[in-house]
Amino acid sequence: MSATQICVKMTLSYDGTEFCGWQVQPKLRTVQGEVEKALFNLTHEKIRITGSGRTDTGVHALGQVAHFNTKKDLPIQAFKEGLNQELPQDVQILDAEFVDENFNARRDAVKRTYRYSLIRKPRVIGRQYAWFPKTSFALEPMREASQYLLGEHDFTSFSKVNEDIETPISLVYDISWEDREDEIDFTITAVRFFHHMIRIVIGTLIEVGRGKMASAQFDNILKVRNRNLAGPTAPPHGLFLMKVEY
Amino acid sequence: MSATQICVKMTLSYDGTEFCGWQVQPKLRTVQGEVEKALFNLTHEKIRITGSGRTDTGVHALGQVAHFNTKKDLPIQAFKEGLNQELPQDVQILDAEFVDENFNARRDAVKRTYRYSLIRKPRVIGRQYAWFPKTSFALEPMREASQYLLGEHDFTSFSKVNEDIETPISLVYDISWEDREDEIDFTITAVRFFHHMIRIVIGTLIEVGRGKMASAQFDNILKVRNRNLAGPTAPPHGLFLMKVEY
Repeated sequence: MSATQICVKMTLSYDGTEFCGWQVQPKLRTVQGEVEKALFNLTHEKIRITGSGRTDTGVHALGQVAHFNTKKDLPIQAFKEGLNQELPQDVQILDAEFVDENFNARRDAVKRTYRYSLIRKPRVIGRQYAWFPKTSFALEPMREASQYLLGEHDFTSFSKVNEDIETPISLVYDISWEDREDEIDFTITAVRFFHHMIRIVIGTLIEVGRGKMASAQFDNILKVRNRNLAGPTAPPHGLFLMKVEY
Repeated sequence: MSATQICVKMTLSYDGTEFCGWQVQPKLRTVQGEVEKALFNLTHEKIRITGSGRTDTGVHALGQVAHFNTKKDLPIQAFKEGLNQELPQDVQILDAEFVDENFNARRDAVKRTYRYSLIRKPRVIGRQYAWFPKTSFALEPMREASQYLLGEHDFTSFSKVNEDIETPISLVYDISWEDREDEIDFTITAVRFFHHMIRIVIGTLIEVGRGKMASAQFDNILKVRNRNLAGPTAPPHGLFLMKVEY
């Protein structure tokens, strides 16, 4: 054991169904809470982990990133396989690596990629991984309207009201749609995302897809910076944090 | 309301994760039990349903078939949408149709198709829908050995011991393997399946895939009709009842 502080960067996957989101909360089962408990079992140290960002109750991750500092001089495999032995089935460490001690999973992230999965027909198998909007929708107008999101914008209209945020500005790098037979995947990459942002974007795009809102109106909503003009918040279980880039 | 007995054939999908199998059992949550409860809520009649066969705890269905008789003269949509309103999220009626009153979902079935899904890497999302055998395996020898199952055989070696069965003989019509990047799907169609049959077949084929058993030995196990010579029973959560033909 060495007294030098080491920093570990972890990539995680979790199934959000049974979690009250990422962030530790008293008495609630959270991803951060479960990982910190597993770390304690492994190291007997009280270690606090920092995620790239919080995810809400029900939101999944295929590539969340978190870091922690420790004085425990264990081989890197202990922080992957050893931790996975301690973790419940619905959260798993995909990768662990030693990084510079100044690395910060939240502050140093430069791009986040999320996916939102929609289905056209209800399904039982995998129902917890996609949203079925009960009335039918056309994909083309949604695809068209979504292009307005690209670039730098003030996302106030597509964010849960929050007085505390530093900036309402983000830069959307990329948007793509994959239309498979039974599932439609919307993928979006941006510098940052605000609370409920993708879920409000999807809830509003669905209005466009149902013919209740024109594409140009979607653009207008973005410009006027008023949450009340956007559509409802889509449910969390279609949302996946896919990747965080540094 | 008419006094004539009508017969309804239903096609169902269910997620076996939270069910103690198909068959009604006192105090346990079963698929049959949930569907009968929903039918009671819809018709106020105590209706017994008959499935094409039982599925064990944890086994899923994408195309189970069941029938029931009733005197309730409801439109067929009531037995689909109406019932789906009453059912929990993990069981769903995919289709309902009126059939001849002598139809019997179990007795009249001539072919059943099941799928077993294997994964080469553990996963969190969808972990309840495929089995991850912890040591690695090669698919080619498994594919080769599985060909011995085709045709008519005594499946005693691949069945849970059961004194009560009428015949240990079945006819396997078709076997196929689909190797996708992250998941391997084994699909098998036969006249009938015995208790644990596919799970023992998979448990034994995995021994072949791990190089612990030769293909010819697999064939020999089938011939000698001794359950003790076959491999362990694979877990239920990789197994899906896909289709029942009449």
